[in-house]
Amino acid sequence: MASIPESVSLRSDAAVRVDAWLGRFEAALASRDVEAAAALFAPQSFWRDLIAFTWNIKTVEGPQGVADLLRNTLPHTAPRGFMIDPAEPPSEANGITEAWILFETAVGRGRGHVRLMGDAAWTFLTTMYELKGHEEPQGRNRPKGVEHGADPNRTTWSERRQREAEELGITTQPYVVIIGGGQGGIALGARLRQLGVPTIIVERNERPGDSWRKRYKSLCLHDPVWYDHLPYIDFPRNWPVFSPKDKIADWLEMYAKVMELNFWGSTTCKRASYDEAAGTWTVVVERAGREITLRPRQLVLATGMSGKPTMPRIEGMDVFRGDQHHSSAHPGPDAYCGKKAVVIGSNNSAHDICAALWETGADVTMVQRSATHIVKSDSLMEIALGDLYSERAVASGITTAKADMIFASLPYRILHELQIPVYNAIRKQDAEFYARLEKAGFMLDYGDDESGLFMKYLRRGSGYYIDVGASELVADGRIKLQSGVTVVRLTEHAVVLSNGVELPADLVVYATGYGSMNGWAADLIAQEVADKVGKVWGLGSGTTKDPGPWEGEERNMWKPTQQPALWFHGGNLHQSRHYSLYLALQLKARHAGIPTPVYGLQEVHHLS
Amino acid sequence: MASIPESVSLRSDAAVRVDAWLGRFEAALASRDVEAAAALFAPQSFWRDLIAFTWNIKTVEGPQGVADLLRNTLPHTAPRGFMIDPAEPPSEANGITEAWILFETAVGRGRGHVRLMGDAAWTFLTTMYELKGHEEPQGRNRPKGVEHGADPNRTTWSERRQREAEELGITTQPYVVIIGGGQGGIALGARLRQLGVPTIIVERNERPGDSWRKRYKSLCLHDPVWYDHLPYIDFPRNWPVFSPKDKIADWLEMYAKVMELNFWGSTTCKRASYDEAAGTWTVVVERAGREITLRPRQLVLATGMSGKPTMPRIEGMDVFRGDQHHSSAHPGPDAYCGKKAVVIGSNNSAHDICAALWETGADVTMVQRSATHIVKSDSLMEIALGDLYSERAVASGITTAKADMIFASLPYRILHELQIPVYNAIRKQDAEFYARLEKAGFMLDYGDDESGLFMKYLRRGSGYYIDVGASELVADGRIKLQSGVTVVRLTEHAVVLSNGVELPADLVVYATGYGSMNGWAADLIAQEVADKVGKVWGLGSGTTKDPGPWEGEERNMWKPTQQPALWFHGGNLHQSRHYSLYLALQLKARHAGIPTPVYGLQEVHHLS
Repeated sequence: MASIPESVSLRSDAAVRVDAWLGRFEAALASRDVEAAAALFAPQSFWRDLIAFTWNIKTVEGPQGVADLLRNTLPHTAPRGFMIDPAEPPSEANGITEAWILFETAVGRGRGHVRLMGDAAWTFLTTMYELKGHEEPQGRNRPKGVEHGADPNRTTWSERRQREAEELGITTQPYVVIIGGGQGGIALGARLRQLGVPTIIVERNERPGDSWRKRYKSLCLHDPVWYDHLPYIDFPRNWPVFSPKDKIADWLEMYAKVMELNFWGSTTCKRASYDEAAGTWTVVVERAGREITLRPRQLVLATGMSGKPTMPRIEGMDVFRGDQHHSSAHPGPDAYCGKKAVVIGSNNSAHDICAALWETGADVTMVQRSATHIVKSDSLMEIALGDLYSERAVASGITTAKADMIFASLPYRILHELQIPVYNAIRKQDAEFYARLEKAGFMLDYGDDESGLFMKYLRRGSGYYIDVGASELVADGRIKLQSGVTVVRLTEHAVVLSNGVELPADLVVYATGYGSMNGWAADLIAQEVADKVGKVWGLGSGTTKDPGPWEGEERNMWKPTQQPALWFHGGNLHQSRHYSLYLALQLKARHAGIPTPVYGLQEVHHLS
Repeated sequence: MASIPESVSLRSDAAVRVDAWLGRFEAALASRDVEAAAALFAPQSFWRDLIAFTWNIKTVEGPQGVADLLRNTLPHTAPRGFMIDPAEPPSEANGITEAWILFETAVGRGRGHVRLMGDAAWTFLTTMYELKGHEEPQGRNRPKGVEHGADPNRTTWSERRQREAEELGITTQPYVVIIGGGQGGIALGARLRQLGVPTIIVERNERPGDSWRKRYKSLCLHDPVWYDHLPYIDFPRNWPVFSPKDKIADWLEMYAKVMELNFWGSTTCKRASYDEAAGTWTVVVERAGREITLRPRQLVLATGMSGKPTMPRIEGMDVFRGDQHHSSAHPGPDAYCGKKAVVIGSNNSAHDICAALWETGADVTMVQRSATHIVKSDSLMEIALGDLYSERAVASGITTAKADMIFASLPYRILHELQIPVYNAIRKQDAEFYARLEKAGFMLDYGDDESGLFMKYLRRGSGYYIDVGASELVADGRIKLQSGVTVVRLTEHAVVLSNGVELPADLVVYATGYGSMNGWAADLIAQEVADKVGKVWGLGSGTTKDPGPWEGEERNMWKPTQQPALWFHGGNLHQSRHYSLYLALQLKARHAGIPTPVYGLQEVHHLS
């Protein structure tokens, strides 16, 4: 009887199954047999690729989608070395075999994830995490810092930093200019610095973090700390669950400093244009009163995933004598004690602003025009996020980095199916809370398909409030409510609603949301370029404010657009962290002259 | 046959042996049988306690020492619950059984380490890591940040921070004042903030990090990054091995900010006095030109373990017409290109300054008065530090926190025995390098007992150079050398040596070291208090500059002194990080009114 090597006999059934699948997959790829590779995928299946095969952020579906992807990418990708990540034993539950995998391509190293149903792949994730020959200098490869030996021409770290700060953008040109120095621009800037891509971040505020500092004083992050880490430096173990705005601002400021970013504060981007033939942007900025022309090869708009503030046009706005401004320009409640405030809108900002005004002693009315999705913050933490982003998750080995990858492995096409039970559970647990809100006249919804907050965020980036206290004020009438109405007009001292009610007002806040990010392209570059790029954000789900056709991925985010060398970056802290890696690698590859043939370039179905 | 529970049958021999020892030890303690407990220790054995039993930093030796410690501490300490740390399986090698352990006392929770030879303890470490009821708010207990709900009296994080900054030291009094805002004061301040002990850090420089920024431009840390982490926030994976001075300065500045320290920059301590009856210090500081009197209960001197600069008195210093200053005041080489420089001394600062002057084009002579210990930085990393503090160590599970505890578990009494082979290996590897230095006339030593750099550091804090390049310049004569000589006098334009040589000089740098830290107490408080406290630093090894008797621990560092409510803190980044925990807990216990009976209070054998 032949002896069985111990290492084999100890492998789990799950590992054996995944090994077999990976072996067949790699053999098919090696022999360029696209049909054989596609046949390894179940009829309903999803392959999500983050730049490893496609130089794009792309999900294809079913064997046909797999075959198309491979036909177009296999020859130049030359993938190989698929193996189970030795640090992560495969597992099996409910008929699904799961495994973390490693692989490489001609130009990069990747990790991924596979879920098998029987012997066929149901979900497949491939991501590139580094470019060969351009590995980040960290861990064993971190810089030495000191230069041993004696050198009469020695320049110190601070001299080099100072020279770079003086020269970059003046006598030398950055390869990338990032417009917007919020968390998105900063996270991307940090990754580009580590990859050695000369970058300038242009921010109209003076200091990193000012975009948080300048908002209303009671603001805290609505996402918990485990969800919010920036690349490279985690928040410490004593960091609050929900960062107060000034504290996160201080963190961003120190982060930009210690990560050595070229952060141009107090700098406004005036205009930009692209010379297609030369492959160069002309970006005109005003820095501390001085106009400077930058000529980067790549331009990233990181001006806020929420895009440009949407100001409604309402009859009488010009005659209204009180204060009126968009929620993004609201200075906070301090000046409004004893005053009458009307807040138009019923999403996050509207609730936060109403509550802060009420706390300050203002008489506040919220005008709700359409249904809003409300989730109590504690319930969201406990039921929706806790498995991936919480102290409990960390204790069970789900670091933030791992949680990001688990989340990335879930195809958007079926994500709502996984989300519906979550929000059903929340509705059940908080039934009494929701009943009180409805009794107060508040119009609730849970998404077009009951899939809740996160799908609303991914599809339209709006339509919800994470309740941190304002809902109680609405339920018991301390924040007055007018719902199911629109604003007809303003008078000198009042807001007139479609139900005939006239609300006296010293202050009107338009918490009316934001437009698509390509609006920034219209302002800074040209309407023509904005139209060429099309709508930014949303999945094409065919639900409210996210028209089809189905896209499979966020429109135009973190990936090539129809406008060469123009990129959109942003999202919440999770997305800024996670997708900044793939955007940075796309930019680095172009910087290094590595070919980046794009598969499945974003098509344009909507202009805004 | 009785069945053996699986969990028992799977335990290793090492675990069984440690369990048995811990069981006997705990039984002896529980029955207050001091002799039985002492009998569990080998004739040559060491129990090192970091505040868990002794409210002191104390090593006792042999069964007799153990018995004495227990007789004095057992009744109020009430230790129990000794167990093997479940996360760390015990191990056995070369006849020594090792284990990490957990335990608790009446007031705190502890961890420790034991090495058994046979059935008797050879080394035993006990440390307290938290006080019951005063656990730090981190991980699951981290602050929530936001306060959910509506509250008309809400104050925000930034309002509270601002109010604290305005009031503390003015209308409210800190419990602790730390003099010195270098890495030591900052690390301690961070821990005290987490423990809720109101603290002000007084620093004469404007910003955190300035004590690094103001030194000569080529300075980098001589210790590697793994050795240098501050509490709570590790350096990121891309941090240089040897931090350039301005980079570590930026880190300290951001750290002080995000850890929310009350850091009074541009503030000088003028004088301090203690009212024994009231238990209150009067500390007069000048802050931005304004004299402020602080009245803390505890005063910490964190003014640099190196203590006050030692300026020699040499005939003719008053007539010398060039520049002359102590190495700590050296402005860097920039002004001395083409000039003649004489550097008196041959330790770290002397070498660094000589090399920087040479690089700038000065004509440099080093005056070596006595033998110096030289180790190449790369050899030190590879042979002396690599097992505990390196990327290799991290990869094998030795985090910095674990390395600190391993290091803490090694008794100072026998540490030199472990160090001698390390430096013998370095001498062998670098024999050719040392031969070239000696050929150039450089006087080498390896410590009185050949135990090398780290023992020199622990015993006297001086007498060595970690070579990052200057030794090559000395060996080949680019840095000129006068060795085995003293300075007899200065003339208007020259330094005259005991061998009759007269060195023309435009600059004289006195790299002549530092005095004991109690010199600061003499300056700030009174000579009487400095004498009451006695010499700070050193082990009492009876070697050069570290006279006996044997102390067992660093004199007066991080522990109670003969002057009530006066503490000394400092050392390198490793020590600042590690011992700041125990100093912070000692201060917190006093702040919380927890009794802290001190066993084995430091006695005074030397005044400076």
